[in-house]
Amino acid sequence: MSDVAIGIDVGGTKALALLVARDGRVVGEMKSQTPHDEGFGAGEATAKVLVEQVNELCERQGLDAARIPIGVGLPGMMRRDGHLAFAPNLPTASGADLGSQVGSALGNSSVFCENDANCAALAEHEWGAGRGIRDFVMVTLGTGIGGGVVADGQLIRGRSGFAGEIGHMVVEARGAACLCGGRGCWERYASGGGVHRLTREAALEGRLPILVERREGDPRGVRAEDVTSAAAEGLQEAVAIMREVGWWLALGLANLAAILDCGHFVIGGGLSSASELVLPAAREYLSELVEGYESRPTITVTTSLFGERSGAMGATLVAVEGA
Amino acid sequence: MSDVAIGIDVGGTKALALLVARDGRVVGEMKSQTPHDEGFGAGEATAKVLVEQVNELCERQGLDAARIPIGVGLPGMMRRDGHLAFAPNLPTASGADLGSQVGSALGNSSVFCENDANCAALAEHEWGAGRGIRDFVMVTLGTGIGGGVVADGQLIRGRSGFAGEIGHMVVEARGAACLCGGRGCWERYASGGGVHRLTREAALEGRLPILVERREGDPRGVRAEDVTSAAAEGLQEAVAIMREVGWWLALGLANLAAILDCGHFVIGGGLSSASELVLPAAREYLSELVEGYESRPTITVTTSLFGERSGAMGATLVAVEGA
Repeated sequence: MSDVAIGIDVGGTKALALLVARDGRVVGEMKSQTPHDEGFGAGEATAKVLVEQVNELCERQGLDAARIPIGVGLPGMMRRDGHLAFAPNLPTASGADLGSQVGSALGNSSVFCENDANCAALAEHEWGAGRGIRDFVMVTLGTGIGGGVVADGQLIRGRSGFAGEIGHMVVEARGAACLCGGRGCWERYASGGGVHRLTREAALEGRLPILVERREGDPRGVRAEDVTSAAAEGLQEAVAIMREVGWWLALGLANLAAILDCGHFVIGGGLSSASELVLPAAREYLSELVEGYESRPTITVTTSLFGERSGAMGATLVAVEGA
Repeated sequence: MSDVAIGIDVGGTKALALLVARDGRVVGEMKSQTPHDEGFGAGEATAKVLVEQVNELCERQGLDAARIPIGVGLPGMMRRDGHLAFAPNLPTASGADLGSQVGSALGNSSVFCENDANCAALAEHEWGAGRGIRDFVMVTLGTGIGGGVVADGQLIRGRSGFAGEIGHMVVEARGAACLCGGRGCWERYASGGGVHRLTREAALEGRLPILVERREGDPRGVRAEDVTSAAAEGLQEAVAIMREVGWWLALGLANLAAILDCGHFVIGGGLSSASELVLPAAREYLSELVEGYESRPTITVTTSLFGERSGAMGATLVAVEGA
C-alpha cells in the first residue's frame, strides 16, 4: 500500500485536508472555507475546493495527485455507493457523488467518501483514544452529535452505510424540535445546540442574573459561550448548566452502552474543548443511568486524541482501505 | 458437527426445551415450570430442572445426554464467560454459571449459555424472519423488551456479552420508573408493561368507560388483557391505546435504525400475539420517527417466524457454535 494518503474532513464551515503517513504522522495540512455556492450542480463547488486542496498538498511534497489515495469525510448520511444521501449542514452537496467528481477531475480512481464521525472513529481506533479497544463509540459533539460505532473491532456501517446517527436517538419523547424534523433528539440536549437551548431557558427563567446583566439586562442576549466561559471561571449557575449538559450526555451514552455493551466512549468534535466542564459530570451520572452498572466492568469516557483532526486522519484510512 | 442439539429457553415462568435438527426441524419438546426455590446455591434449582429436561429428551430419542450439544437461553445479562450477571426476572439464578452446573451434572462439556433474545435473533437469522438479512434487530416484547442485534451478519455481543439490552434505552428522560432502577426505559412504554401502564392511566382518566363498567365501575380493576381483547373487538378507546403502544414501539425502533442502520426488525415474545393490534401503527409511525426516512430504503417490521420457540431454537445454534 501507499506510504501516504490524503484525508479531507468537510464540515459545515471549513474543510481540513491532511497528508498522513501510514503510522499516523501528519506531514501536510491545508484548511479552506467550505463553499455554499448554489447555482452549480450538487457538490460541484465543494468538489472544486477539494481538488484544489489535493493539488496543493501534492505539489508541496512532489506527489502525483492522480495516484495518491484520497478519503473524504462528510457531515451526513453516506450511502455505501458513495452518494451523500442526506446532509442538513451541507445542503449544496446533498445527493452528490463527491468521490466520482473529485476523482474524475484529478484522474484519480482512488477517491472514497465516508461519514465524518465514522472517519473519526477509524482514526481513534487505529492510532488514538480507541486503540486496542474492540467495543467503543466515537461521539463527536459539535452543533449536533455524530457517531461512529466500533463493535468487536469493526466499524458498524449498517445496511446502506448510515449507521452511527446517534445524535438523532430520541431521549425525550415529544421533546425539543430538531433540524431533522423529529423531536427530542439527543443532540438537542447534549451538544453545542443543547448548551444554547439550556442557556436560553435559564436566562429567561431568571437563573443567570449575572450573565443577563453583562448583556445589558437582555436575557435573549446571553450566549452559550458566555455560559461556558463563566462556568470555566466557576460561576455556580453556569456550572449547573454544564453539569446538566453532562447529565444529558450521560443519558445517551447509557443508552448506547445498553444497546451495544461498549465499554468506552471517545468524545471529539468542537464542543470537546469544553469537555473539562461536561465530562466529569457525565462520568458521574453514568453510574446511575447505565442499566446494571454494578454488574459491568468500568465504562470509561475520554476525549479524542486528535481533536478536530480525527475526521481528516480517519479519512485517510478509508482511502487506504478502499484503494 | 452434531445432527441434533438441545436448546432450552428459561423464562421467568417456564423453561422450554427443544431437540432441534441442523435444518431447524424440532424433533422433541418439553416444557417445565421455572423453579424459584430459594435456600439453594445460585442457580441450583434451575440447573436441576434443565438436567431433567435434557435427560428426558435424550431418553425419548435414545441419545446420550453426555454428548449432545446443549444451549441455554437466559433472561438477563450474560457474561461471555457464561455467568448470569444480572437477571431481575430470575433472581435465584443471578450470578450462577448454569452451563458448568448442568454440564457437570450430565458429564457433558458442551453446555453453553447466552442471553435469550440473542438466541432468538440467531434462530430467526438462521432459519426464520431474519434469514439472509445482514442488518436487523430481534425485538422480544414480553413484560419487558429484550433484543438481539445482528450487524453485517454477525450477532453483536459487546465487551462483556451484554449487548442488546434495548429495553433499557431511555426514551423519556425522567419518565416512568423501571425495575432496573432507571426511569423512562423503552420497555415501560412499548411492552406488555407499557400496555398495562397506559391501560391504568386511561382507566383512571375516564377514557375507558365501557371497560371500567365491565369491572364493576372500578378503574383499577381494568387489565391490559381487557384492552387487548376490546381492541381486537374494535372498541375505539382500546384501539387508541394499542396504537399508542405502537407509537412507542416505533420510537424505539427509530432510535435503533438511527444508531445501527438496520433495515429490518423481527418482533417476537409474548406480546407479539397482539401484534396485529400494534404493528400496523408502529409501521405507520416509523415514517415520521426515523431520521431521514425518505433517504433510506424501506424499513420492514415483521413478526418472528417461530414465536415463543425462537429462543430455544436459537440456543441450539449457540450450542453447536460453542461445541
